[in-house]
Amino acid sequence: MQSGVRHLVSIDDLSLAEIQALFEHAKQFSTDLRAWSHLCPGLISASLFYEPSTRTRLSFESAMLRLGGGVLTAADMRSSSASKGESLADTVRVVGGSYADLIVLRHASEGAARLAAQYSPVPVVNAGDGSHEHPTQTLCDLYNLWIERGRIDGIHVVLSGDLRYSRTIHSFVYALARFGANIVCVPLPGFELPGYVMQRLREEFGVEPTRADVSRLGDLARECDAMYLTPQKPHQLSLFTDAKGLAVERVDALYMTRPQTERYTADELSRTRVVHLGKEEMAAESLREAVVMHPLPRRDEISPDMDSDPRSIYFKQAARGVPIRMAILGMLLNRIDLSAPGERVVQPMYPVTRGSNPCANPTCISRTESRHVTPSYRLASRAPVRAYCAFCSQELPHRWVGCSTTGLFHERDSPAARKIRPDHLVFLRDEADALGQGFAAAVRPTQPS
Amino acid sequence: MQSGVRHLVSIDDLSLAEIQALFEHAKQFSTDLRAWSHLCPGLISASLFYEPSTRTRLSFESAMLRLGGGVLTAADMRSSSASKGESLADTVRVVGGSYADLIVLRHASEGAARLAAQYSPVPVVNAGDGSHEHPTQTLCDLYNLWIERGRIDGIHVVLSGDLRYSRTIHSFVYALARFGANIVCVPLPGFELPGYVMQRLREEFGVEPTRADVSRLGDLARECDAMYLTPQKPHQLSLFTDAKGLAVERVDALYMTRPQTERYTADELSRTRVVHLGKEEMAAESLREAVVMHPLPRRDEISPDMDSDPRSIYFKQAARGVPIRMAILGMLLNRIDLSAPGERVVQPMYPVTRGSNPCANPTCISRTESRHVTPSYRLASRAPVRAYCAFCSQELPHRWVGCSTTGLFHERDSPAARKIRPDHLVFLRDEADALGQGFAAAVRPTQPS
Amino acid sequence: MQSGVRHLVSIDDLSLAEIQALFEHAKQFSTDLRAWSHLCPGLISASLFYEPSTRTRLSFESAMLRLGGGVLTAADMRSSSASKGESLADTVRVVGGSYADLIVLRHASEGAARLAAQYSPVPVVNAGDGSHEHPTQTLCDLYNLWIERGRIDGIHVVLSGDLRYSRTIHSFVYALARFGANIVCVPLPGFELPGYVMQRLREEFGVEPTRADVSRLGDLARECDAMYLTPQKPHQLSLFTDAKGLAVERVDALYMTRPQTERYTADELSRTRVVHLGKEEMAAESLREAVVMHPLPRRDEISPDMDSDPRSIYFKQAARGVPIRMAILGMLLNRIDLSAPGERVVQPMYPVTRGSNPCANPTCISRTESRHVTPSYRLASRAPVRAYCAFCSQELPHRWVGCSTTGLFHERDSPAARKIRPDHLVFLRDEADALGQGFAAAVRPTQPS
Repeated sequence: MQSGVRHLVSIDDLSLAEIQALFEHAKQFSTDLRAWSHLCPGLISASLFYEPSTRTRLSFESAMLRLGGGVLTAADMRSSSASKGESLADTVRVVGGSYADLIVLRHASEGAARLAAQYSPVPVVNAGDGSHEHPTQTLCDLYNLWIERGRIDGIHVVLSGDLRYSRTIHSFVYALARFGANIVCVPLPGFELPGYVMQRLREEFGVEPTRADVSRLGDLARECDAMYLTPQKPHQLSLFTDAKGLAVERVDALYMTRPQTERYTADELSRTRVVHLGKEEMAAESLREAVVMHPLPRRDEISPDMDSDPRSIYFKQAARGVPIRMAILGMLLNRIDLSAPGERVVQPMYPVTRGSNPCANPTCISRTESRHVTPSYRLASRAPVRAYCAFCSQELPHRWVGCSTTGLFHERDSPAARKIRPDHLVFLRDEADALGQGFAAAVRPTQPS
Repeated sequence: MQSGVRHLVSIDDLSLAEIQALFEHAKQFSTDLRAWSHLCPGLISASLFYEPSTRTRLSFESAMLRLGGGVLTAADMRSSSASKGESLADTVRVVGGSYADLIVLRHASEGAARLAAQYSPVPVVNAGDGSHEHPTQTLCDLYNLWIERGRIDGIHVVLSGDLRYSRTIHSFVYALARFGANIVCVPLPGFELPGYVMQRLREEFGVEPTRADVSRLGDLARECDAMYLTPQKPHQLSLFTDAKGLAVERVDALYMTRPQTERYTADELSRTRVVHLGKEEMAAESLREAVVMHPLPRRDEISPDMDSDPRSIYFKQAARGVPIRMAILGMLLNRIDLSAPGERVVQPMYPVTRGSNPCANPTCISRTESRHVTPSYRLASRAPVRAYCAFCSQELPHRWVGCSTTGLFHERDSPAARKIRPDHLVFLRDEADALGQGFAAAVRPTQPS
Repeated sequence: MQSGVRHLVSIDDLSLAEIQALFEHAKQFSTDLRAWSHLCPGLISASLFYEPSTRTRLSFESAMLRLGGGVLTAADMRSSSASKGESLADTVRVVGGSYADLIVLRHASEGAARLAAQYSPVPVVNAGDGSHEHPTQTLCDLYNLWIERGRIDGIHVVLSGDLRYSRTIHSFVYALARFGANIVCVPLPGFELPGYVMQRLREEFGVEPTRADVSRLGDLARECDAMYLTPQKPHQLSLFTDAKGLAVERVDALYMTRPQTERYTADELSRTRVVHLGKEEMAAESLREAVVMHPLPRRDEISPDMDSDPRSIYFKQAARGVPIRMAILGMLLNRIDLSAPGERVVQPMYPVTRGSNPCANPTCISRTESRHVTPSYRLASRAPVRAYCAFCSQELPHRWVGCSTTGLFHERDSPAARKIRPDHLVFLRDEADALGQGFAAAVRPTQPS
């Protein structure tokens, strides 16, 4: 495993101050994208794409070329070296060994970029790992808000459409919470934010969901169960709340999403109503000054007649992907200096020392690529003991935990469980699993400490 | 829609003087292809290929690299972003938004480059749109004639083989006519130039077809119905014509074509005779100084033993594709100055304001990509009223036209029809269609004005 | 056919002194891979890959970019221009005509690079032609030995695993013999070096196989029929040999191979035992200082726990592929001067002047691409008259030869046969073939001369 090399696997790898510094650099780059070819001459980035994503790939490659660097392209890794049975760990060690100075990785398995970063001698940028993270997309979205509104803290962002299956939305919502933005969820019925996203918003960012009064949002929010997520203190909110919920007055940005129909069940497919944003919907009072964003590609979510509306910034939004990626590449290649304090969000990571991989996500890289993975977890909470896979970030389903020192096992919400040191924790499926792994039951129920 | 940006969708987008200036630049570039990398540093071209064409793609990318620019490659767009349902209009807005400074587009639908040019913020070069146009190929062919013969005006070019299905031949024949070359058609029986090509040659370029006496062309023209197409005035021709037709004495260039077997009917496949050019055929008297051209790839049309014949220039012809494309890219990126008068051939384009898209070509981009297309037409003639689709250039089949101002409809060859202002024209399938769209029949047959 | 242009089709195209000079340049390049972009600015290499090999492609493209050149990529030629029926000869004439200054060719047919070199106006580098050669891989392996051991002459290299089907191993073994290394073969039972490889080692490099005593190699060599191949004189060997064979004391390098399971028969698949190199196997006495090499990708041949062992150099080995390819490209593009004497190994090549192509290999380029190939051969020995195809290097199976001057035919091991001048030789399947081609039987058996 390498050290001293910096990667961008998750947006949590960056401090708020660093993100702010990246924005400043991106803004400077965008004054003339063609004026920065002196920054990375002689350097090479390699696009290793295990699933196709032409737009993302071209955006990164453009950024590298505009910085004066060279580009190696493997647009279809799955059907080439992977077919010879090579592990991702080996591939990044070879490509990062001398071929390239930075790897841009796209992969179908959650956690792939985390694994790659553990082995690569050069920086790895996550360009999407399954349904997990796509940090440069999120940074691009935040950068757009910052450019358009001058700040992110305290602004109001409406999220519309399929909030359930969109990776982009989940990452975006965490980042908005972290930056202190107010979020108004206007989901299609049945496509609300998933419970685990809400839980993380609450636990990690202290966000409190409240009913939202979206009467001034017009047709866009009709029939939907709107929700207001705010990082503000509840007592502040109560001043404005009544039975109808917190009123959404003035929206700074409306973020439209593409229905992720490829992940829908037959039932969901039959139920899905097409969101369609046109001039009429945008006539709603509270949207008068809202910029309209979309991660693209769109299908029918936004009417072509909105393209000429000055509030529509979705093409500008995509265009800004190049300068923000120039800033990211420049930072990781040590060609620009962020001079920003580096505290991060990331929790410490503990290796699983006993038993099998506790991650239950079948598409997690820790399960699809077993040869070079040390299953690991991060703690989500101590009471009850809850943890998530360090690769795919999905919660471990285990309801029992053992202590590798005492040899005893406990229910995860028992007081004894929370006293186990994280590096002594063993996750157990059930009592049979515990006994099979040689743990003994605690003699009598422990008392609250 | 963008303005102020110049595109190369059709060779008609260039004036003769501009083409001449491009030739001069290309000739200068070809003295040392490696000496021009100072022209486009920092600039990026994107190859968006919705169908594969490695040769064309590499030729453009080589030209861009030799100009010192960078290259983004999407060699298989169809299976990537298009599969996510993105429209071409959106794709070029994103790619042209900041990723690239110029787009090289290859597409299976006729008119795709015209549509892309309407939306792209940066220049679009048509690298082939279905069976419609491939202007840089045509320019390369003309450039070869100019280099080899010193001029195009007045030279004699023999076209041999499948003249019916070859897009290359159709574009080439219009361009030869425009430049004032004499064309001798030596088609395989059943594979003559189509009627609509002949019609355009007559109407637009004043070309008069005459029987050709090809007795001095030898085996090459045996059994075929040869034709002489000349831009010269008929009274000049008559001096040399007799019952056997106009004699073909001295050929400057012989252009061989590949049978487009992939488009043949079963009957045509059974009928097709392989044209085969070898030393024997080239011994014909009138071919003594003819250069042999072929757009490549060839199959068996030209025998390998011709490769060492000094008249064979088909490999040189392909090699000259790079300098001519360097000139084109340099011009569109404003890195070389043509200083040439810019009158073009292109007719004005009128949007269809009522009724459905009148284009009958099922593979026209105006029909395959409806979301961002405004169906449009150009007028071919006023009496009768004939128009062609502004995207795919195929003639509209409608025999009735309405006037959006008077509300009356007429047969297209009636005197009343020709008086309708082009921007008031509505194309109607039949009388039922006319009535259905709210038009009334003219009360009585109008009299000649 | 072109002359004056240098290609790298086989490692035999290089003299030992040239290889040594390439190593010196590669070593210099590797001090800082990013410091050499002044060597090839304005030059372009084209990767023409008729079968995918991402690793090889990226390695070459990285080398070209690090030299400051540009890169054209056709990662999937088979499904593009080849599908239009273009011959390889035509493709390289076009691509080498002006698109690129050097061609890196990967092809499924043996001999493809040799054919390409005959037609290309620019240097061709063989990046793998079927199961034939992959000279830059071999050079990379030799370079690694040279870097790790300071020399190749006289060192001891153990080859382990599937020695039968691996192209890499065959090329490597010839090269080791040529450089004077001692080779210890430790094959999986049933996967020994093929007879024709042994024959060439004997005939061309004077290598004598001896039984090897591999008791100090431990588990790695258990159950296998180990063999010692040495370029030393037999009388020297005899000093150390007893009934158990020549003892293998101290190994300099252990070269592991991937089982080429894709080429196995069902029977071989069932028989194959997985070689697995781990800490335990590497504890063997004679391997104490052996570096561990592998061409990668590996599957299970080397345990991941070997990755941190200082003797494991397989990732370094891959990384060194870039500087050695930089040296090769620099040499072929005349940007570095080898100043080394240029005697080569290659035998003269004779065209087949009568009869059909004598090569019996169905995947040889001389048979798959007949249009532009002149079947040719090189002589392997004079008594008996044995020859191999000049393209795929497989031995011609013919047991009879004719003389085009005398019109007589002979058995190939007859004294008369060996007197035929190589350029008068005609290879004949059997007597019927000989008579059919107009040869007469020699009147009576010729006497020894």
